[in-house]
Amino acid sequence: MAPQYAPSLRSRLAPLLLCLQTLFIIISALYFKNRVTVNKDDLRNFYSGEFLLGGRAQKMKNYELFLFAEFQDVNVMVILGFGFLSTFLVRHGFSSTGFNLLVAAIASQWALILTGVESWFSAGRITVDLKSIVVAELCTASALIAVGSVLGKANPVQLTVIVLLEVSGFVLNEWLLRTLLKVRPLSSIMLLHIFGALFGLTLTWIMYRKGSEDGFEKEKFDRKSGLFSSLGGTVFLWMFWPSFNSVLVPDWTPWRKLGAVSSTYLALAVSAVTAAAVSVLCSPKGKLNLIQMQSCILAGGVAVGVSMSAVHEPWEAMAIGFTAAIVSTIGFKYLKKHMLLAYECHDTCAMLSTHGLPGLLGWLAQLVLQIKDCDDHTVATRFAVFHICTLFITISLSVSMGFLTGFLIKWNFCRPLQNKKCFDDQAFWEFPHLAAHK
Amino acid sequence: MAPQYAPSLRSRLAPLLLCLQTLFIIISALYFKNRVTVNKDDLRNFYSGEFLLGGRAQKMKNYELFLFAEFQDVNVMVILGFGFLSTFLVRHGFSSTGFNLLVAAIASQWALILTGVESWFSAGRITVDLKSIVVAELCTASALIAVGSVLGKANPVQLTVIVLLEVSGFVLNEWLLRTLLKVRPLSSIMLLHIFGALFGLTLTWIMYRKGSEDGFEKEKFDRKSGLFSSLGGTVFLWMFWPSFNSVLVPDWTPWRKLGAVSSTYLALAVSAVTAAAVSVLCSPKGKLNLIQMQSCILAGGVAVGVSMSAVHEPWEAMAIGFTAAIVSTIGFKYLKKHMLLAYECHDTCAMLSTHGLPGLLGWLAQLVLQIKDCDDHTVATRFAVFHICTLFITISLSVSMGFLTGFLIKWNFCRPLQNKKCFDDQAFWEFPHLAAHK
Amino acid sequence: MAPQYAPSLRSRLAPLLLCLQTLFIIISALYFKNRVTVNKDDLRNFYSGEFLLGGRAQKMKNYELFLFAEFQDVNVMVILGFGFLSTFLVRHGFSSTGFNLLVAAIASQWALILTGVESWFSAGRITVDLKSIVVAELCTASALIAVGSVLGKANPVQLTVIVLLEVSGFVLNEWLLRTLLKVRPLSSIMLLHIFGALFGLTLTWIMYRKGSEDGFEKEKFDRKSGLFSSLGGTVFLWMFWPSFNSVLVPDWTPWRKLGAVSSTYLALAVSAVTAAAVSVLCSPKGKLNLIQMQSCILAGGVAVGVSMSAVHEPWEAMAIGFTAAIVSTIGFKYLKKHMLLAYECHDTCAMLSTHGLPGLLGWLAQLVLQIKDCDDHTVATRFAVFHICTLFITISLSVSMGFLTGFLIKWNFCRPLQNKKCFDDQAFWEFPHLAAHK
Repeated sequence: MAPQYAPSLRSRLAPLLLCLQTLFIIISALYFKNRVTVNKDDLRNFYSGEFLLGGRAQKMKNYELFLFAEFQDVNVMVILGFGFLSTFLVRHGFSSTGFNLLVAAIASQWALILTGVESWFSAGRITVDLKSIVVAELCTASALIAVGSVLGKANPVQLTVIVLLEVSGFVLNEWLLRTLLKVRPLSSIMLLHIFGALFGLTLTWIMYRKGSEDGFEKEKFDRKSGLFSSLGGTVFLWMFWPSFNSVLVPDWTPWRKLGAVSSTYLALAVSAVTAAAVSVLCSPKGKLNLIQMQSCILAGGVAVGVSMSAVHEPWEAMAIGFTAAIVSTIGFKYLKKHMLLAYECHDTCAMLSTHGLPGLLGWLAQLVLQIKDCDDHTVATRFAVFHICTLFITISLSVSMGFLTGFLIKWNFCRPLQNKKCFDDQAFWEFPHLAAHK
Repeated sequence: MAPQYAPSLRSRLAPLLLCLQTLFIIISALYFKNRVTVNKDDLRNFYSGEFLLGGRAQKMKNYELFLFAEFQDVNVMVILGFGFLSTFLVRHGFSSTGFNLLVAAIASQWALILTGVESWFSAGRITVDLKSIVVAELCTASALIAVGSVLGKANPVQLTVIVLLEVSGFVLNEWLLRTLLKVRPLSSIMLLHIFGALFGLTLTWIMYRKGSEDGFEKEKFDRKSGLFSSLGGTVFLWMFWPSFNSVLVPDWTPWRKLGAVSSTYLALAVSAVTAAAVSVLCSPKGKLNLIQMQSCILAGGVAVGVSMSAVHEPWEAMAIGFTAAIVSTIGFKYLKKHMLLAYECHDTCAMLSTHGLPGLLGWLAQLVLQIKDCDDHTVATRFAVFHICTLFITISLSVSMGFLTGFLIKWNFCRPLQNKKCFDDQAFWEFPHLAAHK
Repeated sequence: MAPQYAPSLRSRLAPLLLCLQTLFIIISALYFKNRVTVNKDDLRNFYSGEFLLGGRAQKMKNYELFLFAEFQDVNVMVILGFGFLSTFLVRHGFSSTGFNLLVAAIASQWALILTGVESWFSAGRITVDLKSIVVAELCTASALIAVGSVLGKANPVQLTVIVLLEVSGFVLNEWLLRTLLKVRPLSSIMLLHIFGALFGLTLTWIMYRKGSEDGFEKEKFDRKSGLFSSLGGTVFLWMFWPSFNSVLVPDWTPWRKLGAVSSTYLALAVSAVTAAAVSVLCSPKGKLNLIQMQSCILAGGVAVGVSMSAVHEPWEAMAIGFTAAIVSTIGFKYLKKHMLLAYECHDTCAMLSTHGLPGLLGWLAQLVLQIKDCDDHTVATRFAVFHICTLFITISLSVSMGFLTGFLIKWNFCRPLQNKKCFDDQAFWEFPHLAAHK
């Protein structure tokens, strides 16, 4: 007979986190450097200086200002948006938010180290500035998308292993694309939606449990938790997505940066309207579905993000948002159930239709728009070949990393959850009689 | 006997939204242009360029940076603030937030088109940049204020018609004021509070239903939903209002822009304290009322926004905030009930006392301050006449558009809600046994 | 027998707030000036000018832009973060959020006046701009930390008196440190965590009530309110803390400013991971505790903020975050109960372990790092003496102001709450049958 209680994680989680964290600090002590090295004299002046010296003020660069605002927005999206998107599960709110924050903190430190490996090879040190933190947060977003597929079915030890491997795979993918195909970061990092969704899907397929065909006992949502997740997650993602998509546009083309913001806004507005329309159309009683809308109003942001480097006119963004919302809404309606029954693949947050399909659509849109812009036939063909190779490498890597991770975390050392403890906060959180706050 | 179920919107809402959205995309494909037209050569350089080229970087203008930060803040206010202000209705949370997002997405696209009509006449195309999106979002805010009065009593088809007509009326009003009276956008667009509130009031008066004198059966709030709305709506509006009021101050007077931010902050702080004091004073038991405070702590922001172009010293803003909070709190206490009983006008979110009265107060404050600043008697009189005409045109237009809209949406085609289905999420949203998340 | 109902505050709170607010407005009318005095001619041009004049545009300074973004972030932290951190009390949600906003509005106006006293002495007027508002908000943050210790046990009249005295003490402390020891604002204002926590602790010790050894009857939290507070408070504090710590770094060292942002981010990420690990380790069943994690993942931000001027390398920030999280988590686990039983000191929001201990750790870290950087032995010793004096003055002043305030608010005039009305919204808020929204 299975044990009554979820296995204690005390002997697994605590050492794992402490070791990881100590390791990160040691690496940072050895190799991290702030971007600007300050010499001793400057420092002395700094300490003795008055507060508002005005005088020999060093001028702040414009792009630094912009970066600051963008960092804050991306931070909000990654921590709040992706974290609270999944609080719709009524008995899993603590875990959804708490574990998301935890794995985001781990993933962003790990990504900061991995993205710096190259500069460590060449210069012997890893430069840390806001730019590198923003890139690390984008890698974290990719990991959080993957985590969305297995949420509720994995314990924090497993989640930690998952994000470490996902981020490694994603950084490797970016490096491969850059080295082999000279894909620019704007395009390769924005593939995070496709990479994360496919990684998560493979993972949840490997982790499939007998007896979950009809969903899990505690996988429910109610009015309050639905509303909560709608506030916390979706609306914040919706609002800050323009910054998310514009952050990788190079600073020396400010018109492109602001254009990316407008395009994303328009695509999101279009996909909100379209998702509502299709959602009503799909429902026999003509009613809306909150969870469906939550996932699908974001489709435009995903698709435009992936195709950002090729979107130049507002109508292109709007058309992409329109198509993405239709694909995503229909995918949500019919694909999620189908994936579960036909392929034994239980996708908690429907990441396939939220990030996977719109991401693929964005990739396709980029291909079409880029070819349309080309005058020369040879250039167009060459671009198409490169673009298809990009997708192929990304898919292969994400699926194979998903496989690898899946087998690793099924290992008994991680103390996987029993079926009946899935989607239950009480497996991991103290509820002292649900009462006294000590 | 009335039907048991709310009439299905499948055959109304879906085609309406899809047609509208397709229309918007077609218009954008024909006439929208990004602000900067990029020539092919630049693009080619862009694609072949390295990510951090540093070199021939085009400098981002300061005002573009500022605009980016302001766009984000206004976006938060419009989507989150106005959307979640109305989640205090316990059985109407899904609709309040979902429909607000939906109509905001429709209204902002429509406003983007309408505000561009003039440039389309002259230049044959509509320029889309962050500035025009921000202006469109301000028009959307006006529509959301109008929607606040009829919330819970109108279905999404009606709401869509309402925002389309409200935005049309508001843009027409701005055009009239600019063309006839040479009112600057800073003043004319900030009349959005007055326009929206009066439009909504007229509308809800036309839509009055027999049997709703004592409020609707399901028009309730509880502890949780009140708290939720307080977090989601009020506090976000309170926090981001400074950006909302400063966004229209011209960029070539940065000291005015930062002054607008400080003034709004002070006015909001004063009105929070004053609203609490008056709220306690009005209550026989000396208790506070959450919904009342929610509405009234924002009064200072509304009033200072409307009178922004005449507020120069901090104490002026503070005095306006003080008066606005008193007017708004007393209005909320006595006017809402009175409007319902005496004028058969059911104002769901008390938009009259939240936006209407403080808006009118702001208009008055602007008149007084402007005249005080004038040395010349003739100039002062002339200004007063112009200022009164401004208000007169705004009121006439908003009331008449409200009438028109009201008659239009009472038409049976829209399938109005029965009384007992008002303020009920279940009329529009799927609750599959309030359980399984499929 | 004690009265059934909480004593009405009508005759206390309303006059107090109105008098205070009128006083503030009068002071502002007499002495506040906007930073830029505008002459009449400029104004006339401004009014007659077209909206987008482009031409004689005054260039906005970079630091003004930065300030705008930072003001918004600090505002979010103070109003939303500190306000919603304490909604975990299930029957005290309205009061936690409402009173926090109220006292924040009072405290920031009072701080604006007090921080301007010096310039009023020298120049006869108090300059109000975004910078001074940001400093006033930091003083407000210190008052809100103090309020966190007595939350639920004090009525709004008492809270108002507390914040007025706390802010006075804090501004006095900053002035003393600056005048006597030439401590720069970056260091002295960041002591707000230590000052606020010790002030609150002394206060709650003086206000100790017989019969509260086992906690109060209504001091409970539940799943929903815990989740709510976790969303509203902690995550927002976590996200915007980088801006909070960077806001006082002088504008003429932009690299330091961006460095402060990165350092704080890293420290927060490290302390999130560490807090989770230690939390699991402390629990016999190996489970996490939400309230504990909420408090402790912020410890890194506090500690790095206090030691900001001495943190130069990423690993230093990470190591500080690591230590702070361990100290804070262990403090939360064992100290709160101990303080209550051994010292009769009931600390509602555990401000000692959230702000007090990490603050002291940050002070220590600054000392160690600064001495490590010194080449000269004499300079190091001198710095150490100064640094210890700084802490000594801060602690003495906060404790003595706490004593003073405690005795003042125990005075019967304030109508203190009975024990059984503590932590109960119904003492102060109307719940009309918990139903009809009038």
